[in-house]
Amino acid sequence: MSKVYVEGIANHVGQEVAIKGWVYNVRSSGKLHFLLVRDGTGTVQCVVSKADVPQEIFDRCGKLTQESSIVVRGTVREDPRSPVGYEIAVSDVELVQQAIDYPITPKEHGVAFLMDQRHLWLRSSKQHAILRVRAELIRAIRDYFDSRGFLLLDAPIFTPAACEGTTTLFATDYFGEKAYLTQSGQLYMEAGAMAFGKVYCLGPTFRAEKSKTRRHLTEFWMLEPEVAYFDLNDDMDLAEDFVATIVARVLQRRRKELEVLERDVAKLQRVKKPFPRITYDEAIEILRRKGLHVNRGDDFGGDEETALSEEFDRPVMVHRYPRKCKAFYMKADPENPSLALCVDMLAPEGYGEIIGGGQREDDFQTLEERIREHGLPKKAFSWYLDLRKYGSVPHAGFGLGIERTVGWICGVRHVRETIPFPRLMGRLTP
Amino acid sequence: MSKVYVEGIANHVGQEVAIKGWVYNVRSSGKLHFLLVRDGTGTVQCVVSKADVPQEIFDRCGKLTQESSIVVRGTVREDPRSPVGYEIAVSDVELVQQAIDYPITPKEHGVAFLMDQRHLWLRSSKQHAILRVRAELIRAIRDYFDSRGFLLLDAPIFTPAACEGTTTLFATDYFGEKAYLTQSGQLYMEAGAMAFGKVYCLGPTFRAEKSKTRRHLTEFWMLEPEVAYFDLNDDMDLAEDFVATIVARVLQRRRKELEVLERDVAKLQRVKKPFPRITYDEAIEILRRKGLHVNRGDDFGGDEETALSEEFDRPVMVHRYPRKCKAFYMKADPENPSLALCVDMLAPEGYGEIIGGGQREDDFQTLEERIREHGLPKKAFSWYLDLRKYGSVPHAGFGLGIERTVGWICGVRHVRETIPFPRLMGRLTP
Repeated sequence: MSKVYVEGIANHVGQEVAIKGWVYNVRSSGKLHFLLVRDGTGTVQCVVSKADVPQEIFDRCGKLTQESSIVVRGTVREDPRSPVGYEIAVSDVELVQQAIDYPITPKEHGVAFLMDQRHLWLRSSKQHAILRVRAELIRAIRDYFDSRGFLLLDAPIFTPAACEGTTTLFATDYFGEKAYLTQSGQLYMEAGAMAFGKVYCLGPTFRAEKSKTRRHLTEFWMLEPEVAYFDLNDDMDLAEDFVATIVARVLQRRRKELEVLERDVAKLQRVKKPFPRITYDEAIEILRRKGLHVNRGDDFGGDEETALSEEFDRPVMVHRYPRKCKAFYMKADPENPSLALCVDMLAPEGYGEIIGGGQREDDFQTLEERIREHGLPKKAFSWYLDLRKYGSVPHAGFGLGIERTVGWICGVRHVRETIPFPRLMGRLTP
Repeated sequence: MSKVYVEGIANHVGQEVAIKGWVYNVRSSGKLHFLLVRDGTGTVQCVVSKADVPQEIFDRCGKLTQESSIVVRGTVREDPRSPVGYEIAVSDVELVQQAIDYPITPKEHGVAFLMDQRHLWLRSSKQHAILRVRAELIRAIRDYFDSRGFLLLDAPIFTPAACEGTTTLFATDYFGEKAYLTQSGQLYMEAGAMAFGKVYCLGPTFRAEKSKTRRHLTEFWMLEPEVAYFDLNDDMDLAEDFVATIVARVLQRRRKELEVLERDVAKLQRVKKPFPRITYDEAIEILRRKGLHVNRGDDFGGDEETALSEEFDRPVMVHRYPRKCKAFYMKADPENPSLALCVDMLAPEGYGEIIGGGQREDDFQTLEERIREHGLPKKAFSWYLDLRKYGSVPHAGFGLGIERTVGWICGVRHVRETIPFPRLMGRLTP
């Protein structure tokens, strides 16, 4: 008898198999028990007939509780009514461990309770669907860059200096020195682009955000490609092609999961090139027309992003923000130096900014001046300035937030469900 | 004229192309300049003939310095003497930025100097080879697990408690609480295995190692698969098949890089199943026979690992260490409860332990007792104990250190060159 996973059951019709898993549900009706057994790869109905098994086993099945671990042996048979197309005619059930009072029941639970039970909540079908989409998305991202000649170059987590502001940094004692947890691998990817032409990193980044919003985690994963000899337009072309490709891939391979999540896939099917591209000034006009009070010169917040995204049926790229509301490394627009050659991509349906990027300042003197203007310690950035000294070239890149992208694709409003073990202000467990 | 990368130059023979890159070297001989130009994907010789270009451009080429950024235009032609098989007959050279006194010259430099220049050192051919092997290895690892039904489940970086000892932890203030940077995602992967059957994580982990050895980084990447219903033998089978597969993959796809590194690939070709499996007691006998003084009951250090690896032509798996020198979560061997159902895999040629793993304690009472014995805070592990309460099953997994594996495959003795931006005691920059 071979041990099989539910996902591979179709290859074993008519055969005796063993499924090792957990009880998802039991229904009984006189001479039959219907066990729904999950093994992590899927759920299958196992039919226990009083006529077919010893009395002892039949009785045992009547007492099985939710999440008890069991090994079921039996014959695979086709069943068109089953969601997986098959069921098991049971010959034996071995109890591995009886679960008593599993805390997550089919009734409704509050989010705080479920977050405390995250280690168990992961077993529910909605969380399965979200985390399978997450894994597929990450796979699609890596495939996209690996197949286009980008080199994976992991950025360091410990950094000696802040990249964007210092108020949202986590610090640690590093053998007597102070080290900060990275907020972005970008500066390192710039060094990488000068060495390898096209690079990317995908790893955790950290922000000590004191705000409790549905869009912020303290620990989140970010993808950051960087390309030598790229300008802002190249960067927007890449971001657009990339996002259209990964959304199509998830649609193609994770349709079942999106159904579980009741996601309106028609909205995702519209995510095709070209994406609208508007300037910051055009965005201001749209917002004012919609009755929002925005000052030209301010960065956009969640409300503005949501309002803008309502105007489009696919992601919108907003470019050329005022330089003063963006980071020191942004290159000034030669046609209007008060603007930065930057771009934000806003997801549709109010899911917020998923990409931020742009062209980097590549002139030594200008960058040195910016570092001074922003009051940053020049010494910490001397290696970064070196990149402008030894073969400086125009270059650009962007960062994509994994969890926000998962949230958008899954139609899940709060990012806390888009990562296996979310970390937020006031949430460090389990 | 199309912009091409050196890696794709074979598709453009006879065509006018533009290569955007950096000067690696210039040789001149009267009426000819030979520019070696690298663009991150490869290096190509560009021949500038006095007869073919304006005087101004010919003169410019004579003054080009190492790492100056240039755009070269010209015609691709076959050249059997070239390492890439092609060269460029130059029609134009545009200087983007002149590099003055690039600090890394062809002469020998000390390692401390090179480590300070890591952002530039990445441009050298040896570092290129190592980091391309690293990227290929990571790709091979992900392919291995993704294609075998394992779900990628990222482990959290911030953790409330220590998994293995507390002396080597980095801590940070987490909104008034204390958070530690993860040393291992294992406990979280155990929760994942109960939800998804087969899971893995691959991310950075942290150890505040005070020792300066060639095998330790403070920040290193680790792969950790975990499987429900797996015992120690299943675990060893998986580890063996996995390591044989990824080594074969790197051999197949990164042969050129291994040549640059002058790696003896015959030694890697021997890495085939089955790997020798010896008990801790057998290992002790070998070590004593070799004249090492080891106490039965002690864990092995670098010297013992090196001595053991000398006895085998492929990785060796040492299993069933004394329980007292291993972590609290290891399951006791039912045939001899003083031993743990654990396994370490030692790389050949003295590259040290690359895998540590084993079967986990799955009995609630026993695990609770272990937590008490080890003086660990029970409250912090209550969620972990839950996994033994609600459908506990036998399960096992392992951790593979990425950098040590890269070092072994590349034949690089010190792990500092196996990660883009190494972090060690006393090394936090660039």
